[in-house]
Amino acid sequence: MVVALKPLHDHFNIKRVIVSTYQSVSGAGRAPMDELLNQSKDYLDGKKIYSKNFTKQIAFNLIPHIDEFVDQGYTKEELKMINETKKILDPQIQVSATCVRVPVMVSHSESINVEFEKPFDIKKVKEILIKSKGCKVIDERKDGGYITTLEAENSYLTFISRIRKDSSNNKAINMWVVCDNLLKGAALNTVQIAEKLIEKYYGK
Amino acid sequence: MVVALKPLHDHFNIKRVIVSTYQSVSGAGRAPMDELLNQSKDYLDGKKIYSKNFTKQIAFNLIPHIDEFVDQGYTKEELKMINETKKILDPQIQVSATCVRVPVMVSHSESINVEFEKPFDIKKVKEILIKSKGCKVIDERKDGGYITTLEAENSYLTFISRIRKDSSNNKAINMWVVCDNLLKGAALNTVQIAEKLIEKYYGK
Repeated sequence: MVVALKPLHDHFNIKRVIVSTYQSVSGAGRAPMDELLNQSKDYLDGKKIYSKNFTKQIAFNLIPHIDEFVDQGYTKEELKMINETKKILDPQIQVSATCVRVPVMVSHSESINVEFEKPFDIKKVKEILIKSKGCKVIDERKDGGYITTLEAENSYLTFISRIRKDSSNNKAINMWVVCDNLLKGAALNTVQIAEKLIEKYYGK
Repeated sequence: MVVALKPLHDHFNIKRVIVSTYQSVSGAGRAPMDELLNQSKDYLDGKKIYSKNFTKQIAFNLIPHIDEFVDQGYTKEELKMINETKKILDPQIQVSATCVRVPVMVSHSESINVEFEKPFDIKKVKEILIKSKGCKVIDERKDGGYITTLEAENSYLTFISRIRKDSSNNKAINMWVVCDNLLKGAALNTVQIAEKLIEKYYGK
Protein backbone atom coordinates (compact mmCIF):
# COMPACT_ATOMS: atom_id res chain seq x y z
CA MET A 1 0.00 0.00 0.00
CA VAL A 2 2.72 2.49 0.93
CA VAL A 3 4.36 2.13 -2.50
CA ALA A 4 1.24 3.68 -4.02
CA LEU A 5 0.70 6.17 -1.19
CA LYS A 6 4.22 7.62 -0.94
CA PRO A 7 4.23 9.62 -4.23
CA LEU A 8 0.70 10.87 -3.50
CA HIS A 9 1.68 11.94 0.01
CA ASP A 10 4.66 13.86 -1.42
CA HIS A 11 2.32 15.83 -3.68
CA PHE A 12 -0.96 16.21 -1.81
CA ASN A 13 -0.29 15.40 1.86
CA ILE A 14 -2.37 12.41 2.85
CA LYS A 15 -4.64 13.07 5.82
CA ARG A 16 -6.51 9.80 6.18
CA VAL A 17 -6.52 6.27 4.70
CA ILE A 18 -9.31 3.70 4.95
CA VAL A 19 -8.29 0.33 3.57
CA SER A 20 -10.05 -3.01 3.16
CA THR A 21 -7.78 -5.86 2.15
CA TYR A 22 -8.25 -9.02 0.13
CA GLN A 23 -5.23 -11.09 1.22
CA SER A 24 -4.09 -14.35 -0.34
CA VAL A 25 -3.41 -17.52 1.64
CA SER A 26 0.31 -17.45 0.77
CA GLY A 27 0.63 -14.61 3.27
CA ALA A 28 0.07 -17.28 5.93
CA GLY A 29 2.66 -19.72 4.52
CA ARG A 30 2.98 -22.95 2.52
CA ALA A 31 0.65 -25.18 4.58
CA PRO A 32 -2.26 -22.70 4.24
CA MET A 33 -1.72 -22.69 0.46
CA ASP A 34 -2.03 -26.49 0.42
CA GLU A 35 -5.10 -26.20 2.64
CA LEU A 36 -6.85 -23.94 0.11
CA LEU A 37 -6.05 -26.35 -2.73
CA ASN A 38 -7.09 -29.45 -0.77
CA GLN A 39 -10.27 -27.88 0.55
CA SER A 40 -11.19 -26.66 -2.94
CA LYS A 41 -10.75 -30.20 -4.30
CA ASP A 42 -12.81 -31.69 -1.46
CA TYR A 43 -15.51 -29.05 -2.00
CA LEU A 44 -15.74 -29.88 -5.70
CA ASP A 45 -15.80 -33.61 -4.88
CA GLY A 46 -18.59 -33.05 -2.34
CA LYS A 47 -16.41 -34.31 0.53
CA LYS A 48 -16.36 -33.09 4.13
CA ILE A 49 -13.96 -30.18 4.64
CA TYR A 50 -11.47 -29.92 7.50
CA SER A 51 -9.71 -26.71 8.61
CA LYS A 52 -6.33 -26.68 10.30
CA ASN A 53 -4.45 -23.52 9.31
CA PHE A 54 -7.45 -21.21 9.33
CA THR A 55 -10.18 -20.85 11.94
CA LYS A 56 -12.83 -21.69 9.33
CA GLN A 57 -13.05 -23.07 5.80
CA ILE A 58 -11.15 -20.85 3.35
CA ALA A 59 -12.12 -22.56 0.07
CA PHE A 60 -14.98 -20.64 -1.59
CA ASN A 61 -15.19 -18.51 1.56
CA LEU A 62 -13.86 -15.28 3.13
CA ILE A 63 -12.45 -14.95 6.64
CA PRO A 64 -12.53 -11.41 8.10
CA HIS A 65 -9.60 -12.09 10.42
CA ILE A 66 -5.80 -12.26 9.99
CA ASP A 67 -3.41 -12.86 12.91
CA GLU A 68 -4.45 -12.43 16.56
CA PHE A 69 -7.20 -10.23 17.95
CA VAL A 70 -5.41 -7.58 19.95
CA ASP A 71 -7.14 -4.41 21.07
CA GLN A 72 -10.44 -2.57 20.58
CA GLY A 73 -11.61 -5.29 18.21
CA TYR A 74 -8.63 -4.88 15.87
CA THR A 75 -6.32 -7.69 14.77
CA LYS A 76 -2.52 -7.58 14.85
CA GLU A 77 -2.46 -7.47 11.02
CA GLU A 78 -4.72 -4.42 10.99
CA LEU A 79 -2.69 -2.62 13.66
CA LYS A 80 0.45 -3.45 11.68
CA MET A 81 -1.00 -1.74 8.60
CA ILE A 82 -1.95 1.29 10.68
CA ASN A 83 1.35 1.60 12.56
CA GLU A 84 3.70 0.77 9.69
CA THR A 85 2.01 3.25 7.35
CA LYS A 86 2.56 5.95 9.97
CA LYS A 87 6.14 4.79 10.58
CA ILE A 88 7.11 4.58 6.90
CA LEU A 89 5.21 7.60 5.57
CA ASP A 90 4.20 10.05 8.26
CA PRO A 91 2.93 9.70 11.86
CA GLN A 92 0.31 12.37 11.08
CA ILE A 93 -1.57 10.12 8.65
CA GLN A 94 -4.69 8.59 10.17
CA VAL A 95 -5.29 5.00 9.08
CA SER A 96 -8.10 2.49 9.49
CA ALA A 97 -7.76 -1.07 8.21
CA THR A 98 -9.92 -4.16 7.80
CA CYS A 99 -7.95 -7.27 6.83
CA VAL A 100 -9.73 -10.17 5.14
CA ARG A 101 -8.38 -13.53 3.97
CA VAL A 102 -9.65 -14.57 0.53
CA PRO A 103 -9.43 -17.88 -1.41
CA VAL A 104 -6.59 -16.75 -3.68
CA MET A 105 -3.13 -18.36 -3.74
CA VAL A 106 -0.79 -15.40 -4.27
CA SER A 107 -0.98 -11.56 -4.27
CA HIS A 108 -2.64 -9.22 -1.83
CA SER A 109 -5.24 -6.73 -3.06
CA GLU A 110 -6.52 -3.59 -1.40
CA SER A 111 -9.46 -1.27 -1.83
CA ILE A 112 -8.08 2.05 -0.58
CA ASN A 113 -9.78 5.35 0.19
CA VAL A 114 -7.31 8.23 0.52
CA GLU A 115 -8.14 11.71 1.78
CA PHE A 116 -5.75 14.53 0.90
CA GLU A 117 -5.05 17.79 2.66
CA LYS A 118 -4.19 19.68 -0.52
CA PRO A 119 -6.50 20.10 -3.52
CA PHE A 120 -5.88 17.63 -6.32
CA ASP A 121 -6.93 16.73 -9.81
CA ILE A 122 -7.69 13.08 -10.55
CA LYS A 123 -5.73 13.23 -13.83
CA LYS A 124 -2.72 14.53 -11.94
CA VAL A 125 -3.06 11.71 -9.37
CA LYS A 126 -2.96 9.20 -12.21
CA GLU A 127 0.01 10.91 -13.87
CA ILE A 128 1.99 10.87 -10.62
CA LEU A 129 1.33 7.17 -10.11
CA ILE A 130 2.24 6.38 -13.75
CA LYS A 131 5.61 8.09 -13.26
CA SER A 132 6.33 6.53 -9.85
CA LYS A 133 9.09 3.93 -9.67
CA GLY A 134 7.79 0.49 -8.80
CA CYS A 135 4.19 1.39 -9.73
CA LYS A 136 2.27 0.20 -12.77
CA VAL A 137 -1.06 1.86 -13.52
CA ILE A 138 -3.62 -0.19 -15.46
CA ASP A 139 -6.78 1.87 -15.48
CA GLU A 140 -8.82 2.02 -18.66
CA ARG A 141 -12.30 2.30 -17.12
CA LYS A 142 -13.65 -0.45 -19.36
CA ASP A 143 -14.17 -4.24 -19.31
CA GLY A 144 -10.89 -5.90 -18.39
CA GLY A 145 -9.04 -2.58 -18.20
CA TYR A 146 -7.74 -3.16 -14.66
CA ILE A 147 -5.47 -5.51 -12.77
CA THR A 148 -6.88 -8.67 -11.23
CA THR A 149 -5.09 -10.38 -8.37
CA LEU A 150 -3.74 -13.34 -10.38
CA GLU A 151 -2.18 -11.04 -12.98
CA ALA A 152 0.11 -9.40 -10.41
CA GLU A 153 1.76 -12.72 -9.61
CA ASN A 154 5.48 -12.99 -10.42
CA SER A 155 5.93 -9.24 -10.80
CA TYR A 156 7.90 -6.91 -8.55
CA LEU A 157 5.55 -4.05 -9.41
CA THR A 158 2.70 -2.56 -7.39
CA PHE A 159 -0.29 -2.48 -9.73
CA ILE A 160 -2.87 0.30 -9.42
CA SER A 161 -6.35 0.40 -10.98
CA ARG A 162 -9.78 1.93 -10.45
CA ILE A 163 -8.35 5.37 -9.60
CA ARG A 164 -11.30 7.72 -9.18
CA LYS A 165 -12.67 10.59 -7.10
CA ASP A 166 -14.48 9.56 -3.94
CA SER A 167 -18.19 10.20 -4.54
CA SER A 168 -18.71 10.92 -0.83
CA ASN A 169 -15.93 13.45 -0.26
CA ASN A 170 -14.33 15.73 -2.87
CA LYS A 171 -11.02 15.71 -0.97
CA ALA A 172 -10.61 11.95 -1.39
CA ILE A 173 -10.01 9.24 -3.98
CA ASN A 174 -10.53 5.48 -4.25
CA MET A 175 -8.15 3.02 -5.84
CA TRP A 176 -7.47 -0.71 -6.19
CA VAL A 177 -3.92 -1.84 -5.48
CA VAL A 178 -2.45 -5.33 -6.05
CA CYS A 179 0.99 -6.72 -5.36
CA ASP A 180 2.66 -10.14 -5.32
CA ASN A 181 3.08 -10.56 -1.56
CA LEU A 182 5.74 -13.25 -1.98
CA LEU A 183 8.02 -11.12 -4.17
CA LYS A 184 7.31 -7.62 -2.84
CA GLY A 185 7.32 -8.71 0.79
CA ALA A 186 9.79 -8.18 3.59
CA ALA A 187 12.69 -9.90 1.79
CA LEU A 188 12.61 -7.84 -1.41
CA ASN A 189 12.13 -4.64 0.56
CA THR A 190 15.32 -5.42 2.52
CA VAL A 191 17.27 -5.92 -0.72
CA GLN A 192 15.86 -2.68 -2.17
CA ILE A 193 16.75 -0.74 0.99
CA ALA A 194 20.29 -2.18 0.85
CA GLU A 195 20.55 -1.12 -2.81
CA LYS A 196 19.46 2.42 -1.91
CA LEU A 197 22.09 2.58 0.86
CA ILE A 198 24.82 1.33 -1.50
CA GLU A 199 23.74 3.93 -4.08
CA LYS A 200 23.87 6.63 -1.43
CA TYR A 201 27.29 5.80 -0.05
CA TYR A 202 29.13 4.40 -3.08
CA GLY A 203 27.26 6.00 -5.99
CA LYS A 204 25.31 4.12 -8.68
CA MET B 1 -25.96 -2.98 3.74
CA VAL B 2 -28.98 -0.79 4.45
CA VAL B 3 -30.44 -3.39 6.84
CA ALA B 4 -27.46 -2.78 9.12
CA LEU B 5 -27.32 0.96 8.49
CA LYS B 6 -30.98 1.85 9.06
CA PRO B 7 -31.08 1.33 12.86
CA LEU B 8 -27.77 3.17 13.22
CA HIS B 9 -29.01 6.08 11.11
CA ASP B 10 -32.13 6.32 13.30
CA HIS B 11 -29.93 6.71 16.39
CA PHE B 12 -26.80 8.54 15.30
CA ASN B 13 -27.52 10.12 11.90
CA ILE B 14 -25.16 8.67 9.33
CA LYS B 15 -23.09 11.28 7.52
CA ARG B 16 -20.88 9.18 5.26
CA VAL B 17 -20.41 5.54 4.23
CA ILE B 18 -17.35 4.03 2.54
CA VAL B 19 -17.93 0.44 1.49
CA SER B 20 -15.78 -2.19 -0.20
CA THR B 21 -17.67 -5.30 -1.27
CA TYR B 22 -16.75 -8.94 -1.65
CA GLN B 23 -19.56 -10.21 -3.91
CA SER B 24 -20.25 -13.83 -4.76
CA VAL B 25 -20.64 -15.13 -8.31
CA SER B 26 -24.29 -16.04 -7.74
CA GLY B 27 -25.04 -12.33 -7.95
CA ALA B 28 -24.30 -12.69 -11.66
CA GLY B 29 -26.53 -15.74 -12.18
CA ARG B 30 -26.41 -19.52 -12.64
CA ALA B 31 -23.91 -19.70 -15.54
CA PRO B 32 -21.29 -17.66 -13.61
CA MET B 33 -21.68 -20.07 -10.67
CA ASP B 34 -20.93 -22.98 -13.00
CA GLU B 35 -18.01 -21.03 -14.43
CA LEU B 36 -16.43 -20.66 -10.98
CA LEU B 37 -16.84 -24.39 -10.30
CA ASN B 38 -15.54 -25.45 -13.72
CA GLN B 39 -12.59 -23.05 -13.65
CA SER B 40 -11.69 -24.17 -10.12
CA LYS B 41 -11.68 -27.80 -11.28
CA ASP B 42 -9.57 -26.95 -14.34
CA TYR B 43 -7.16 -24.94 -12.17
CA LEU B 44 -6.69 -27.87 -9.79
CA ASP B 45 -6.24 -30.23 -12.74
CA GLY B 46 -3.65 -27.91 -14.28
CA LYS B 47 -5.79 -27.33 -17.39
CA LYS B 48 -6.12 -24.16 -19.44
CA ILE B 49 -8.85 -21.86 -18.12
CA TYR B 50 -11.47 -20.18 -20.28
CA SER B 51 -13.61 -17.19 -19.22
CA LYS B 52 -17.03 -16.51 -20.64
CA ASN B 53 -19.23 -14.88 -18.00
CA PHE B 54 -16.52 -12.74 -16.45
CA THR B 55 -13.95 -10.51 -18.17
CA LYS B 56 -11.13 -12.50 -16.56
CA GLN B 57 -10.61 -15.75 -14.64
CA ILE B 58 -12.65 -15.77 -11.42
CA ALA B 59 -11.36 -19.02 -9.87
CA PHE B 60 -8.67 -18.24 -7.27
CA ASN B 61 -8.84 -14.61 -8.40
CA LEU B 62 -10.58 -11.28 -7.66
CA ILE B 63 -12.17 -9.01 -10.26
CA PRO B 64 -12.57 -5.34 -9.19
CA HIS B 65 -15.47 -4.77 -11.54
CA ILE B 66 -19.20 -5.59 -11.45
CA ASP B 67 -21.63 -4.51 -14.20
CA GLU B 68 -20.80 -1.78 -16.74
CA PHE B 69 -18.38 1.09 -16.35
CA VAL B 70 -20.54 4.19 -16.33
CA ASP B 71 -19.23 7.53 -15.18
CA GLN B 72 -16.14 9.04 -13.51
CA GLY B 73 -14.57 5.59 -13.30
CA TYR B 74 -17.48 4.11 -11.34
CA THR B 75 -19.41 0.98 -12.32
CA LYS B 76 -23.20 0.68 -12.47
CA GLU B 77 -23.11 -1.63 -9.41
CA GLU B 78 -21.22 0.98 -7.40
CA LEU B 79 -23.54 3.80 -8.44
CA LYS B 80 -26.49 1.57 -7.53
CA MET B 81 -25.12 1.14 -4.00
CA ILE B 82 -24.61 4.89 -3.71
CA ASN B 83 -28.00 5.92 -5.12
CA GLU B 84 -30.11 3.22 -3.48
CA THR B 85 -28.63 3.88 -0.05
CA LYS B 86 -29.58 7.54 -0.43
CA LYS B 87 -33.03 6.62 -1.77
CA ILE B 88 -33.81 4.06 0.93
CA LEU B 89 -32.23 5.77 3.94
CA ASP B 90 -31.62 9.47 3.39
CA PRO B 91 -30.46 11.59 0.42
CA GLN B 92 -28.13 13.47 2.79
CA ILE B 93 -25.92 10.42 3.35
CA GLN B 94 -22.70 10.54 1.33
CA VAL B 95 -21.66 7.14 -0.02
CA SER B 96 -18.61 5.78 -1.80
CA ALA B 97 -18.48 2.18 -3.03
CA THR B 98 -15.96 -0.21 -4.55
CA CYS B 99 -17.52 -3.45 -5.81
CA VAL B 100 -15.36 -6.54 -6.22
CA ARG B 101 -16.27 -10.03 -7.45
CA VAL B 102 -14.74 -12.83 -5.36
CA PRO B 103 -14.52 -16.61 -5.91
CA VAL B 104 -17.36 -17.48 -3.55
CA MET B 105 -20.61 -19.17 -4.64
CA VAL B 106 -23.26 -17.48 -2.48
CA SER B 107 -23.50 -14.48 -0.08
CA HIS B 108 -22.22 -10.97 -0.45
CA SER B 109 -19.87 -9.51 2.16
CA GLU B 110 -19.04 -5.88 2.86
CA SER B 111 -16.37 -4.02 4.76
CA ILE B 112 -18.17 -0.83 5.79
CA ASN B 113 -16.89 2.39 7.31
CA VAL B 114 -19.68 4.54 8.75
CA GLU B 115 -19.30 8.11 9.97
CA PHE B 116 -21.96 9.48 12.32
CA GLU B 117 -23.11 13.02 12.95
CA LYS B 118 -24.05 12.41 16.58
CA PRO B 119 -21.70 11.13 19.27
CA PHE B 120 -21.92 7.39 19.88
CA ASP B 121 -20.62 4.63 22.11
CA ILE B 122 -19.43 1.44 20.43
CA LYS B 123 -21.27 -0.71 23.01
CA LYS B 124 -24.48 1.14 22.22
CA VAL B 125 -23.91 0.59 18.47
CA LYS B 126 -23.60 -3.14 19.12
CA GLU B 127 -26.70 -3.19 21.36
CA ILE B 128 -28.77 -1.42 18.72
CA LEU B 129 -27.72 -3.90 16.05
CA ILE B 130 -28.38 -6.87 18.36
CA LYS B 131 -31.94 -5.61 18.91
CA SER B 132 -32.60 -4.79 15.24
CA LYS B 133 -35.05 -6.98 13.37
CA GLY B 134 -33.40 -8.99 10.62
CA CYS B 135 -29.91 -8.46 12.04
CA LYS B 136 -27.74 -11.06 13.76
CA VAL B 137 -24.59 -9.85 15.51
CA ILE B 138 -21.74 -12.36 15.85
CA ASP B 139 -18.83 -10.42 17.28
CA GLU B 140 -16.70 -12.05 19.94
CA ARG B 141 -13.33 -10.46 19.05
CA LYS B 142 -11.60 -13.85 19.14
CA ASP B 143 -10.64 -16.69 16.75
CA GLY B 144 -13.75 -17.77 14.86
CA GLY B 145 -15.98 -15.29 16.72
CA TYR B 146 -17.34 -13.69 13.54
CA ILE B 147 -19.40 -14.58 10.50
CA THR B 148 -17.70 -15.90 7.40
CA THR B 149 -19.39 -15.66 4.02
CA LEU B 150 -20.31 -19.35 3.70
CA GLU B 151 -22.00 -19.36 7.10
CA ALA B 152 -24.58 -16.77 6.02
CA GLU B 153 -25.87 -19.02 3.24
CA ASN B 154 -29.50 -20.15 3.57
CA SER B 155 -30.36 -17.53 6.19
CA TYR B 156 -32.68 -14.56 5.80
CA LEU B 157 -30.65 -12.61 8.35
CA THR B 158 -28.07 -9.88 7.81
CA PHE B 159 -25.00 -10.93 9.82
CA ILE B 160 -22.79 -8.30 11.41
CA SER B 161 -19.28 -8.80 12.82
CA ARG B 162 -16.06 -6.88 13.51
CA ILE B 163 -17.92 -3.86 14.93
CA ARG B 164 -15.27 -1.44 16.18
CA LYS B 165 -14.33 2.21 16.39
CA ASP B 166 -12.53 3.61 13.37
CA SER B 167 -8.90 4.15 14.38
CA SER B 168 -8.62 7.08 11.95
CA ASN B 169 -11.69 9.08 12.98
CA ASN B 170 -13.45 9.04 16.35
CA LYS B 171 -16.80 9.83 14.73
CA ALA B 172 -16.76 6.60 12.69
CA ILE B 173 -16.94 2.83 13.01
CA ASN B 174 -15.98 -0.18 10.90
CA MET B 175 -18.01 -3.34 10.50
CA TRP B 176 -18.22 -6.54 8.43
CA VAL B 177 -21.65 -7.38 7.03
CA VAL B 178 -22.68 -10.60 5.25
CA CYS B 179 -25.96 -11.64 3.71
CA ASP B 180 -27.23 -14.45 1.48
CA ASN B 181 -27.76 -12.49 -1.74
CA LEU B 182 -30.08 -15.13 -3.19
CA LEU B 183 -32.49 -15.10 -0.25
CA LYS B 184 -32.27 -11.48 0.92
CA GLY B 185 -32.31 -10.06 -2.59
CA ALA B 186 -34.90 -8.16 -4.54
CA ALA B 187 -37.54 -10.91 -4.34
CA LEU B 188 -37.56 -11.33 -0.56
CA ASN B 189 -37.49 -7.58 -0.07
CA THR B 190 -40.63 -7.29 -2.22
CA VAL B 191 -42.42 -9.89 -0.09
CA GLN B 192 -41.34 -8.15 3.12
CA ILE B 193 -42.50 -4.76 1.83
CA ALA B 194 -45.86 -6.32 0.87
CA GLU B 195 -46.15 -7.80 4.38
CA LYS B 196 -45.46 -4.39 5.92
CA LEU B 197 -48.15 -2.79 3.75
CA ILE B 198 -50.67 -5.48 4.70
CA GLU B 199 -49.81 -4.96 8.38
CA LYS B 200 -50.26 -1.23 8.00
CA TYR B 201 -53.63 -1.32 6.25
CA TYR B 202 -55.22 -4.45 7.67
CA GLY B 203 -53.47 -4.86 11.03
CA LYS B 204 -51.24 -7.82 12.04
